[in-house]
Amino acid sequence: MIDRYIHPDMAGLFTDANRFARYLEIELLVVAAWEELGVAPVGSTAICRSRSPKIDTAFVEAVSERELITNHDVAAFVDVVQAAIGGPEASWIHYGMTSSDVVDTSWCSLLTEAADLLISAADELIDVLVSLARRHRNTVTIGRTHGMHAEPTTFGAKCALWALQVDRDRHRLRSARSAIAVGKLSGAVGTYSNVDPRVEEIVCRALRLRPVPATQVVSRDRHAQYLYACAAVGSTLEMIAVELRHLQRTEVSEVQEGFRPGQKGSSAMPHKRNPISSETLTGLSRLLRGNLVAGFENVALWHERDISHSSAERVVLPDSSQLAHYGLKRAARLLAGLVVNVERMERNVSLTNGLVFSQPALLALIKSGMSRDDAYRVVQEAASNSWENGRPFRESLAQHLSDERLDQVFDLTKMVEGAHRTVDALDNAF
Amino acid sequence: MIDRYIHPDMAGLFTDANRFARYLEIELLVVAAWEELGVAPVGSTAICRSRSPKIDTAFVEAVSERELITNHDVAAFVDVVQAAIGGPEASWIHYGMTSSDVVDTSWCSLLTEAADLLISAADELIDVLVSLARRHRNTVTIGRTHGMHAEPTTFGAKCALWALQVDRDRHRLRSARSAIAVGKLSGAVGTYSNVDPRVEEIVCRALRLRPVPATQVVSRDRHAQYLYACAAVGSTLEMIAVELRHLQRTEVSEVQEGFRPGQKGSSAMPHKRNPISSETLTGLSRLLRGNLVAGFENVALWHERDISHSSAERVVLPDSSQLAHYGLKRAARLLAGLVVNVERMERNVSLTNGLVFSQPALLALIKSGMSRDDAYRVVQEAASNSWENGRPFRESLAQHLSDERLDQVFDLTKMVEGAHRTVDALDNAF
Amino acid sequence: MIDRYIHPDMAGLFTDANRFARYLEIELLVVAAWEELGVAPVGSTAICRSRSPKIDTAFVEAVSERELITNHDVAAFVDVVQAAIGGPEASWIHYGMTSSDVVDTSWCSLLTEAADLLISAADELIDVLVSLARRHRNTVTIGRTHGMHAEPTTFGAKCALWALQVDRDRHRLRSARSAIAVGKLSGAVGTYSNVDPRVEEIVCRALRLRPVPATQVVSRDRHAQYLYACAAVGSTLEMIAVELRHLQRTEVSEVQEGFRPGQKGSSAMPHKRNPISSETLTGLSRLLRGNLVAGFENVALWHERDISHSSAERVVLPDSSQLAHYGLKRAARLLAGLVVNVERMERNVSLTNGLVFSQPALLALIKSGMSRDDAYRVVQEAASNSWENGRPFRESLAQHLSDERLDQVFDLTKMVEGAHRTVDALDNAF
Amino acid sequence: MIDRYIHPDMAGLFTDANRFARYLEIELLVVAAWEELGVAPVGSTAICRSRSPKIDTAFVEAVSERELITNHDVAAFVDVVQAAIGGPEASWIHYGMTSSDVVDTSWCSLLTEAADLLISAADELIDVLVSLARRHRNTVTIGRTHGMHAEPTTFGAKCALWALQVDRDRHRLRSARSAIAVGKLSGAVGTYSNVDPRVEEIVCRALRLRPVPATQVVSRDRHAQYLYACAAVGSTLEMIAVELRHLQRTEVSEVQEGFRPGQKGSSAMPHKRNPISSETLTGLSRLLRGNLVAGFENVALWHERDISHSSAERVVLPDSSQLAHYGLKRAARLLAGLVVNVERMERNVSLTNGLVFSQPALLALIKSGMSRDDAYRVVQEAASNSWENGRPFRESLAQHLSDERLDQVFDLTKMVEGAHRTVDALDNAF
Repeated sequence: MIDRYIHPDMAGLFTDANRFARYLEIELLVVAAWEELGVAPVGSTAICRSRSPKIDTAFVEAVSERELITNHDVAAFVDVVQAAIGGPEASWIHYGMTSSDVVDTSWCSLLTEAADLLISAADELIDVLVSLARRHRNTVTIGRTHGMHAEPTTFGAKCALWALQVDRDRHRLRSARSAIAVGKLSGAVGTYSNVDPRVEEIVCRALRLRPVPATQVVSRDRHAQYLYACAAVGSTLEMIAVELRHLQRTEVSEVQEGFRPGQKGSSAMPHKRNPISSETLTGLSRLLRGNLVAGFENVALWHERDISHSSAERVVLPDSSQLAHYGLKRAARLLAGLVVNVERMERNVSLTNGLVFSQPALLALIKSGMSRDDAYRVVQEAASNSWENGRPFRESLAQHLSDERLDQVFDLTKMVEGAHRTVDALDNAF
Repeated sequence: MIDRYIHPDMAGLFTDANRFARYLEIELLVVAAWEELGVAPVGSTAICRSRSPKIDTAFVEAVSERELITNHDVAAFVDVVQAAIGGPEASWIHYGMTSSDVVDTSWCSLLTEAADLLISAADELIDVLVSLARRHRNTVTIGRTHGMHAEPTTFGAKCALWALQVDRDRHRLRSARSAIAVGKLSGAVGTYSNVDPRVEEIVCRALRLRPVPATQVVSRDRHAQYLYACAAVGSTLEMIAVELRHLQRTEVSEVQEGFRPGQKGSSAMPHKRNPISSETLTGLSRLLRGNLVAGFENVALWHERDISHSSAERVVLPDSSQLAHYGLKRAARLLAGLVVNVERMERNVSLTNGLVFSQPALLALIKSGMSRDDAYRVVQEAASNSWENGRPFRESLAQHLSDERLDQVFDLTKMVEGAHRTVDALDNAF
Repeated sequence: MIDRYIHPDMAGLFTDANRFARYLEIELLVVAAWEELGVAPVGSTAICRSRSPKIDTAFVEAVSERELITNHDVAAFVDVVQAAIGGPEASWIHYGMTSSDVVDTSWCSLLTEAADLLISAADELIDVLVSLARRHRNTVTIGRTHGMHAEPTTFGAKCALWALQVDRDRHRLRSARSAIAVGKLSGAVGTYSNVDPRVEEIVCRALRLRPVPATQVVSRDRHAQYLYACAAVGSTLEMIAVELRHLQRTEVSEVQEGFRPGQKGSSAMPHKRNPISSETLTGLSRLLRGNLVAGFENVALWHERDISHSSAERVVLPDSSQLAHYGLKRAARLLAGLVVNVERMERNVSLTNGLVFSQPALLALIKSGMSRDDAYRVVQEAASNSWENGRPFRESLAQHLSDERLDQVFDLTKMVEGAHRTVDALDNAF
Repeated sequence: MIDRYIHPDMAGLFTDANRFARYLEIELLVVAAWEELGVAPVGSTAICRSRSPKIDTAFVEAVSERELITNHDVAAFVDVVQAAIGGPEASWIHYGMTSSDVVDTSWCSLLTEAADLLISAADELIDVLVSLARRHRNTVTIGRTHGMHAEPTTFGAKCALWALQVDRDRHRLRSARSAIAVGKLSGAVGTYSNVDPRVEEIVCRALRLRPVPATQVVSRDRHAQYLYACAAVGSTLEMIAVELRHLQRTEVSEVQEGFRPGQKGSSAMPHKRNPISSETLTGLSRLLRGNLVAGFENVALWHERDISHSSAERVVLPDSSQLAHYGLKRAARLLAGLVVNVERMERNVSLTNGLVFSQPALLALIKSGMSRDDAYRVVQEAASNSWENGRPFRESLAQHLSDERLDQVFDLTKMVEGAHRTVDALDNAF
């Protein structure tokens, strides 16, 4: 992923250096396990650990250079580490392991950390949304269906629904974390042919991963689920972003992205204040969906594994993690700084001269004895007249309903009352 | 979906007639709720129910015809139902409802039923796989990585891993069922503007759905999750199918799809017995992944809903349900009838003259004092010789290891011992 | 595909009956070729043709029933046809053929026809768009970027750009048609092992298809290209549809979908006139994209073919053809009946009190000697003031520019002059 | 994209520095155009060019820093360039431009270069394949359908079909190049409101791009087509790679990836020589398909553009270019070094004791007077016997056909004769 879309909190997680550091940690835990089981001599771990190379740029380069010979990156890694440790102890590094024991367990460990960062970023976003929902519990705004004014609701209810959806995504992230928080050190085809199952137990416990039955690798339905959770986050962010873009358009002007002093909206048109954060989020969600395609195609590996998933995963696992995380963080910041134009919301509710009360009008006519079909046509015609002539809708209904009835029909407060239920649902949700 | 890929158990679920029957059931429950709340006169429900039209081909056609006028299928449905019921009672049909209250709750109800059928089909497949795994607990077979012989494992372990993966899909189906088993009757923009929230509660309780805060519609992340669960099932079936296709290829011949008397393998080549069920399953999984793309794009509806999701869902929701269900059923039948060629599996294990013992050989050499790097080259060379000259691998190692050591290295029983752990894991899994 | 999204012009193309009719036609052409080559006795074709079964519902059912025995649909088809023809002549049916010779050539023939229908539907849509573009060459409307008012353009220019894009899609359809208008009758693995290459030539010539080197089947990159062209059509339709939905929203109201008398906009809110055709088109494009995923995954068939593509293609090839075709037809009808609210477009241009002239203002200031950076800030501030206070933007610039200069800056006619180039580009494009 | 999957030939193309260098080139061409048109004073271009900043790491950092203020990367770029140039001439930089004039034209220019590199890499791969096809024109190998031995073909024919498919991809790349080799400098909404259309002409001519009617940006169907062409390349590479993996599996052993001295196949199993290049290519193709999803979703931009495509494109346009290019290069190297085991291919043809002649046997029986159905069953039974008992298939037919007839049936040379047509088709194809 390009730096632009990596949030600092996740910046160090998927670097080559951090990956190799994780490999090394696992290799050392394996030595410790063999020592604990009485296979490796007492003290092997201490020596290996003390002579371990520092995982820095030089180390990464040494492995790259070695890979030119081995054409196998784990073999290169093991060679470089063993050379640094030297002596008979070096032989305990990677003892009984197949590359995937280290690589796959390392991936799972890194992704579990990524999942934690994602969950915590979701927490933040939910907090922002909940507070926005409560702040705007009584901010009346027009509800729109098909892009057309429908009936009033509250801006608080909108935010509350977003909070509830991000919360569902958080559940998806937790399920994905659980799916991916596993490890395997069961050898070439998952039969522990050259490794004691207790090594797996000891190492996984130290890494806080569950050991699972496996082939050479952990099943890829787990990684696909992780990528699904990231894509689900992306789609939710897109939904929020699209709404903010709509509410921000010139004719609507109900919200505005915070604008920094000095910021340029458009290099050509100085009057523009564009919803670029929302647009950026919309675009990023497309990437997250695309990556899931690769994730699913990685599931049907051949026999006890083929390595086709590896090249795709080197790209999509970090990319989706970073994009979903960046998106959550950016959305939280955007929403925390959102300018909400309450007056404009009110003004927009009145834009259709009362047409938004057409449903209570319909029901009042039915209640007054008209058939549903007749009532529908009366209201439709009155609405047409009102829309075309700019006349208040209420007037066009005067011949059919008493003033008292009309007061009940055109009661904005009553109409949005039910929207509070959605905001109040937050109290029980978290 | 074309009939070919709909299993009889699900055939009636997504027909127009059944959809309208569900609409009608919801409309009648709504009348009952209004009656219970004292809004509709006592007896309204009984009259509406008794005069309700039969939902048959004629009814579906009547709605289609009416839709030519209304250009709105729910409006057409309501018109036809009200005409049939007649009298003042007809006005209680759809009272306080917006179309989506009926349509969306109906979708959720149908999908919940579909999810139950999917879960039960997953149950069946797991049963078949568990029994296959136990039957073949001791059937030794070569484990392959990169398509190359690696180390031996058991066919039972393969089947057990599949069972565990289908079980994870079953969990995904259950989560999806829970996400989708919801209802909403909260009106045009989810504010209960013209409906008592208790109506929603009463109707949802009768349908065994949870009422949820909503806009005009239930959030589409729920439907995307359902489509994800179906796609996950598809990818698992593909994984199993691809393996069966591999094991069935002429050079491998370890399994065979059951072949009916009279069946033609190839119209041109009478000797062929092709793995067509496995191939069909492979193809269907591609459809399931594609449908999820649409599912995700449906999430970011505009404002309180736009109807763009509707056309896509009319296709993908039934299609994915039917394909995943058909796939599970067909896989269960295929695996129940699978011919497993145990002798050929044994023969294939020996195909490389013992090369599959290269890892224990490597470890034995290391244990005997060689450095890992030296041992690796010794084994690699011995393997090359053995592979190129057809000489038993054991012979090429004779100069480095004692006979006793070699016996330990070339011990097949010991090598697959760990595979039993995978089969035994089934005992705790279910 | 569900009937709802199949246009009558394409309704008969992908039925079982039509598919079998195409098979039969190919089989009879093969007999004729063998006869022409002197292999089959003179008169065989005439007899086979005269005794050929009628391809009707009964025939389709007979094949289905037979398939229960053969588990192979082409074998079943051949059996039923041969039984009907009888005598020694029946043996010439399918002589030298492998199933794929018939099935794959039939698919290509059907898809070529579908491509022709798609191209002709694109023609229609282009005609509608070109005429709309010319009619609205001088209809000024606000151009929007980021959803914000930017600078004026014309509605004609919008339509012209759409026409040009549909024209590019037409080119894609033509390329796809060319890719798919091929045939193969070269036997089990494409080696003409049991068939004279001249048979392929004769049959393909009669079907107006190019014979191509093949394995057992025609390469699936061709079908993927066809599905790409359909998906490209879908994305263009979505682009148009999304624009129409935007222009139709209550606050914008610049266009309106034609509304039939009797049509119901919303079952609950009689005042609504919703852009449902545009929304439907938006949803359908999602399906077309999803189907391409399957198309690409079908490319990497094993060896000389595996049949995994078949199940997926039975669904996606008809579905994408029908959806793209339906979409083109529906878009043409929608645009032909589009209500364009010219006055409202004019009114909307003025909505920002002249802010849309901010760029000429910026350039005028630069021309008057200000640095770009200073000019940018002057305009940005003036724009902010104007936007917040509702003051005409021109006034806020009075201190910086002369009246004459301001006249030049605020010249709407000059500003949209360049938009005519886009409409005029149509003259050379077609 | 991670460095691992970027080929050196494309490494410099999509860096920040090269992107800014392209921006600068366009800005200077614009000044030159204004000068040519007599708007900018004579000499402006020379001064701007001579004072232009060097585009190096320091420049990139300066822009990044400036972007922290402007929150707009082009505005930041223009600021830094103008500051470097200084004086009244600096004002001509970006004169009359909107950001997209520069950014979009720059993208198109870079992608056109990328397309050229892709086409040239396709050339290379085709050369390798054509030479492999000709070298193996007579190398007999078993053709397989459904993974089962079908009839013999030649390895040359396989390679020739690949060459023809890569050639079709080359056509797709050329079409995509043509679609993307366009430019636009028509201002904020494509109306040339503040720029002379001749500027666009002059600049595009210098960049060898066609000027096209546009909104603020070039239509995104063009970029989607480019991503499609890359994905098509990916699917073809996957097809080749999957075949090589199959042919390389232990039981088949017909080809082998070149293996470097010192290379490690498996860190645990020294005997393994894994098809890792083919597997890597398989994985990369999944990424290319996924990126197209984003490309399609970018088409339906709002009104005269929204910027949602931008974030997605910053990732997918370079990534798909680099991955498709790397894949073509790696495939060419892999195939150039491919070890083809001709003897093993021959041996595998005989693996089924002659069953691969079942179709000529069937036809011979029909020719001898048997009905097709009877003949089919005779051959199927004989094939079953032969397969199960390991008896030569020819023997099982002895009771039905004369020795002379059997000689004709079991004639390998005749059977693969037609495969040469495929190799010979290369002569006319290029």
